[in-house]
Amino acid sequence: MTIASSRAQAEALDATDPLRSLRDQFQLPEGVIYLDGNSLGAPPKAALARLRHTAESEWRQDLVKSWNTAGWFDLPKTSGAKIATIIGVAPDDVIVTDNVSVNVFKLASALWTSAPGAIAYMEGEFPTDGYILQGLSQLTGARLLRIPETGLGATPDALPTDLRILVKSTVHYKTATVADISAWEQAAAHKGISIIWDLSHAAGLIDLDLANAGAQYAVGCGYKYLNGGPGAPAFIYVARKAAEKLDQPLSGWMGHAAPFDFADDYTPAPGVQRFASGTPPILSLSALDAALDLFAGVSMAAVEAKAATLGDLFLSRCVQLGLQSISPTIGARRGGHIALHHDHAYEVVQALIAQGVIGDFRMPDLIRFGFSPFYIQHTDIWDAAEILQSILANQSWRDPAFAHRQPVT
Amino acid sequence: MTIASSRAQAEALDATDPLRSLRDQFQLPEGVIYLDGNSLGAPPKAALARLRHTAESEWRQDLVKSWNTAGWFDLPKTSGAKIATIIGVAPDDVIVTDNVSVNVFKLASALWTSAPGAIAYMEGEFPTDGYILQGLSQLTGARLLRIPETGLGATPDALPTDLRILVKSTVHYKTATVADISAWEQAAAHKGISIIWDLSHAAGLIDLDLANAGAQYAVGCGYKYLNGGPGAPAFIYVARKAAEKLDQPLSGWMGHAAPFDFADDYTPAPGVQRFASGTPPILSLSALDAALDLFAGVSMAAVEAKAATLGDLFLSRCVQLGLQSISPTIGARRGGHIALHHDHAYEVVQALIAQGVIGDFRMPDLIRFGFSPFYIQHTDIWDAAEILQSILANQSWRDPAFAHRQPVT
Repeated sequence: MTIASSRAQAEALDATDPLRSLRDQFQLPEGVIYLDGNSLGAPPKAALARLRHTAESEWRQDLVKSWNTAGWFDLPKTSGAKIATIIGVAPDDVIVTDNVSVNVFKLASALWTSAPGAIAYMEGEFPTDGYILQGLSQLTGARLLRIPETGLGATPDALPTDLRILVKSTVHYKTATVADISAWEQAAAHKGISIIWDLSHAAGLIDLDLANAGAQYAVGCGYKYLNGGPGAPAFIYVARKAAEKLDQPLSGWMGHAAPFDFADDYTPAPGVQRFASGTPPILSLSALDAALDLFAGVSMAAVEAKAATLGDLFLSRCVQLGLQSISPTIGARRGGHIALHHDHAYEVVQALIAQGVIGDFRMPDLIRFGFSPFYIQHTDIWDAAEILQSILANQSWRDPAFAHRQPVT
Repeated sequence: MTIASSRAQAEALDATDPLRSLRDQFQLPEGVIYLDGNSLGAPPKAALARLRHTAESEWRQDLVKSWNTAGWFDLPKTSGAKIATIIGVAPDDVIVTDNVSVNVFKLASALWTSAPGAIAYMEGEFPTDGYILQGLSQLTGARLLRIPETGLGATPDALPTDLRILVKSTVHYKTATVADISAWEQAAAHKGISIIWDLSHAAGLIDLDLANAGAQYAVGCGYKYLNGGPGAPAFIYVARKAAEKLDQPLSGWMGHAAPFDFADDYTPAPGVQRFASGTPPILSLSALDAALDLFAGVSMAAVEAKAATLGDLFLSRCVQLGLQSISPTIGARRGGHIALHHDHAYEVVQALIAQGVIGDFRMPDLIRFGFSPFYIQHTDIWDAAEILQSILANQSWRDPAFAHRQPVT
């Protein structure tokens, strides 16, 4: 793997980048290097166009008929099938519905009902997963465990034998560490543990081969590397043979086998469709559905490889600047971002934004930079690193204007 | 109350309609009389404009910064406060979040956790409410009752004394019968029953005075009379003093007291904010937020009164045509729609649509017409009734083209 050591070398990498044509599918703002696509993906032109069509034509002109004529009813399945291809599972095994938190609840409670036992989350991973299990435990009395973040306890082989359900991130939201799905699934299978994978920072970035790795349950969000728009609906994957045995308690009418019979009694739809709840937000869902089309024909191996070279380049520059990273090192398997310590992380992020480089701040002292391979190029990374170097060298982050704190995203 | 008996009289009613200026806030398609706003409200021009701005400017141009700069974080509260005014509760006691099904689950499970006991839904009301309680019962073992639809058992005084939680519609989705909230709350209070009101067919139409009527818990959808767009996010109302005692199990990070601390342990936010779950769908939420501005300064008494005269006019014509209605009679309190029997209801609805009158079909033999007072006028009702009369007189619904069934909305 080549790490560019000059802007000319970065340009050369861009020229041979197999994904280079994808950048034209986006209309990025002038003068901005956007290194926060791991938080909110930039809008594909096609998603903006589709949203206009859904609003101005389908909603305004065709009104309620669009549930049938524009395929609104089928959108959770239609977009689910596109995500299925991206994460490596059967097309019928994914639907788009609700948000990640709600979907974790559906899966964990359905699994707990079918086989009650201890439930667990990973200390230090994105906290909503743990919050949801705390809520489930409070409601049902399920025994709740917290698996330690570091040390032997955090390895697959150390999973408690009395554990039944674990929620685990595929890519860590802070460090970008990638979990070995096969290894975890193998260890879990021996102990009868079901793993719910949170793919939020992995879907659309990592070359997942989820079904072959033995994963049966996953959730993920639509607004990071899938570029579906702010708060885009989330997805849920349940392997078909597992879905048929599960009853999830958020059994709204959209998960009914025959929703328009308006029967008083709930009968779950076949497969993962039973994990739908109520009426989905069509405007948001429509934008996501169009954004997903950018993945058609794209090699996820190429996407992951480009994320690695982009991250390696930025990391190599940051190491030269003396910054400490908490992310996997150069050359290691890593998600689409890196996180760096700085005693004045907040101020440095503000100073970067003032110069058009958008990253984000994470409490208490982390700067996080994300590299979305669809629209970030090696020259962007090079230029952003130059700006960071200048800010640190001049200590221009000490400008009092950068110390004023807003709520952080 | 005057019922027009000629088109000229309908025109006269339109000329003095205090809400007549609102129609110009919509851009209805040419040649269509839209009598299905009870299923999907038509788009306010302001909602379409706002959606364009949110997508093309906030998302595309300002990217992740818009969570702060465009007020995305506050949208659940901002739009909740607007809904609070419409339904007659304190501004801080409503947030927009998730869908109706999910919100029923949150409220029912939070109430059940705080005081376990029997939970119940009303037979024949919109089934998702019952489905969700069936799901909650299956998960927790809560005893589940179904209150009969008709007869003495359906009156507030007949509620079982061992009941603790009841989900009840304010306006019935089929018949449009309006429940007497005060009477139900008084009967419930004597027996220690908490009522969760489903306002889906009431919010934005009925002059609700929810807090004064004693209601403490409600949910409702954003896409019917609130005109927020297809599948617009739903809302949840919890009276402040009740909210502080409740812990809901879908405890996602957006309901946390300090979501950006990323703490491992969940601490609920004050008040109804603890009923938020995960990241909300901003594109859909933004359209709803703009749609709600149409209610500013509008008298809900005038809205309900206009719905009554529109419905009375249509019903009087349908009675003349010999059609049987299952909705409350002329002059009675009624929601924004009427439902009529016809042995060939499906075909009649298709024949109407072919002539530009959009109503909907409900299994097995009902035609449902809705009258959204913001954009439907008395002359629309008159003209639609003329077309219906002609279709029935000529039996033009017998055209085989109208018998081809699509999935129904």
